[in-house]
Amino acid sequence: MGNVIKLVKNKYKDEEPIQKLLSLIENDFVRVNNLINEQVISQVDRIPDVSNHIIELGGKRLRPILTLTTSKICHYKGDMHIKLAAAVELMHTATLLHDDVVDDSDFRRGKSASHIVWDNKSSILVGDFLLGKAFQLMVETKSLECLKNLSNASAKIAEGEVMQLIASDNIKTTEDQYMHIIEAKTAELFSTACVVSALIAESKEEEINALISFGKNLGIAFQLKDDALDYSGDEKILGKNIGDDFFEGKVTLPIILAYRRGNVSEREFLENSFNNKIRNKDLLKKAIKIINQYNTINDTLSKAKQHGRVAKDALAIFPETEFKAALMKLVDFSIIRSH
Amino acid sequence: MGNVIKLVKNKYKDEEPIQKLLSLIENDFVRVNNLINEQVISQVDRIPDVSNHIIELGGKRLRPILTLTTSKICHYKGDMHIKLAAAVELMHTATLLHDDVVDDSDFRRGKSASHIVWDNKSSILVGDFLLGKAFQLMVETKSLECLKNLSNASAKIAEGEVMQLIASDNIKTTEDQYMHIIEAKTAELFSTACVVSALIAESKEEEINALISFGKNLGIAFQLKDDALDYSGDEKILGKNIGDDFFEGKVTLPIILAYRRGNVSEREFLENSFNNKIRNKDLLKKAIKIINQYNTINDTLSKAKQHGRVAKDALAIFPETEFKAALMKLVDFSIIRSH
Repeated sequence: MGNVIKLVKNKYKDEEPIQKLLSLIENDFVRVNNLINEQVISQVDRIPDVSNHIIELGGKRLRPILTLTTSKICHYKGDMHIKLAAAVELMHTATLLHDDVVDDSDFRRGKSASHIVWDNKSSILVGDFLLGKAFQLMVETKSLECLKNLSNASAKIAEGEVMQLIASDNIKTTEDQYMHIIEAKTAELFSTACVVSALIAESKEEEINALISFGKNLGIAFQLKDDALDYSGDEKILGKNIGDDFFEGKVTLPIILAYRRGNVSEREFLENSFNNKIRNKDLLKKAIKIINQYNTINDTLSKAKQHGRVAKDALAIFPETEFKAALMKLVDFSIIRSH
Repeated sequence: MGNVIKLVKNKYKDEEPIQKLLSLIENDFVRVNNLINEQVISQVDRIPDVSNHIIELGGKRLRPILTLTTSKICHYKGDMHIKLAAAVELMHTATLLHDDVVDDSDFRRGKSASHIVWDNKSSILVGDFLLGKAFQLMVETKSLECLKNLSNASAKIAEGEVMQLIASDNIKTTEDQYMHIIEAKTAELFSTACVVSALIAESKEEEINALISFGKNLGIAFQLKDDALDYSGDEKILGKNIGDDFFEGKVTLPIILAYRRGNVSEREFLENSFNNKIRNKDLLKKAIKIINQYNTINDTLSKAKQHGRVAKDALAIFPETEFKAALMKLVDFSIIRSH
């Protein structure tokens, strides 16, 4: 258990502002992690085995961190934010287990993905189990408003994933279609992770709206940065190979823009890589060359910054506190991070 | 839409008592089917395509029928039973989509399974979408008690599925372990489909307990009959080949009992078929011969009848109405059915 906290802290070892944020919410954060660990207890060993495998890989835990920190800026005094933060992370973990099967990814967070260590079947069913557990926790909060938002998010995330599946290998996906996908598959849960705090705290409508906007735009910025890193990151720092999206046929903004801006032969090459699935390491290099030529990483990052700015401005109505300052830093981190 | 109603009625065309039950609840049943159809609407075509494919294959719709009929014996006067019945069927449909991927079944209800028509990815993600929609409907009932029961069921069903996955190909699974699996993966949702009626109707505790017991034992009886049919049904009436469980390595009661009762060479043969996965049509015939020799189909059915009896006795405390009589007939149908 303490291990997970250590792992998460280690993720942020070079990010002093995030370290500070974690220390601000440390007690709550430990409670959330304990609660998550209790949820995966089952007499059926495969369930804790698969769950702990993905949990102990230690993601960034951004979503529960958001719930815990936003509950502070909403002056929430109760205990339900712990359950909500755990529920949000369990929903996210369930999605990751299913995503790894759908994307056929061999690695997750730099280690073998669960469906490689066990099998697709276990990942599908343990994902379903974790989703059921997430809903159990939400029900325990007795907040119908939170339940409504979280169940809406659950359907919308799946809808976004199906949209992405349909768009995969289709290099002609437009920038607008792509934004629509990431709003559903990524930004929705970020937004919900934030708004549930305002709902349990019975905050004013303007604060609810501010947190919806903050979470959504932070989620978009985070995803765009992820997309940029996948073509431009430092593999050592990233903890995974670059080009995963390319090899999985996932059409993301850097490649969408490269296609739109390319000349006839560059477009033909990208159509072959995506629509006709002709992909290898040399072809990835060629794709990156086109990406660099048309400066599409910078434009993706500049779009991320724009959404980060909207996220920060959305928080303006909240008083200046160390929690608000920490959330502002979290936006910056999401965009400047190198992993 | 009318098609689905026609399909379901056709399922029961030789079952006069079930036809009568359907006519008793017909208006509600049409509303449930309309509501289900509304849930699968999405701008992402793949979602209605995959959903309608499995919905239009027209299962027996036993779970929503149970919710609608039990809400009558609980004298429920509101509208929430429609949402609950639809939610229960959507949960079940989501499970079927995931099951087909997990079992790698080519057929579902006599037609190509969704993951064959489209792909595993679509079945996983559309299943997730339908589960999200089921939770949205549950939240709309605003009944925290129902939400608690349904989210518990959701986690327990997934746990049962993982148990079955672990037990697959293990011919040494005990009868008790097997009962534990079907209580979770099948009986839990039957039980929940019944008890939510008592919860929204604010019934007395003894009626709540009666419906839990009724649903659970009916579910067990139903599953045991399914297991028996898989080795002994008439393929034409069944609408599928027999032996699916054998080929999928699913260890069910007829084969568990055959292994326990077999002599050394019969056991060795069954160990080869299951634990070593040596299976073909001739070996299925040999397995059926052992099953028949030790009369394990009859013993499975006699166990089903026993649970059917418990289900019927559980209903004793409810006054005699045509709805109660119809539920009694439904128990009989679940055991004598030939499909």
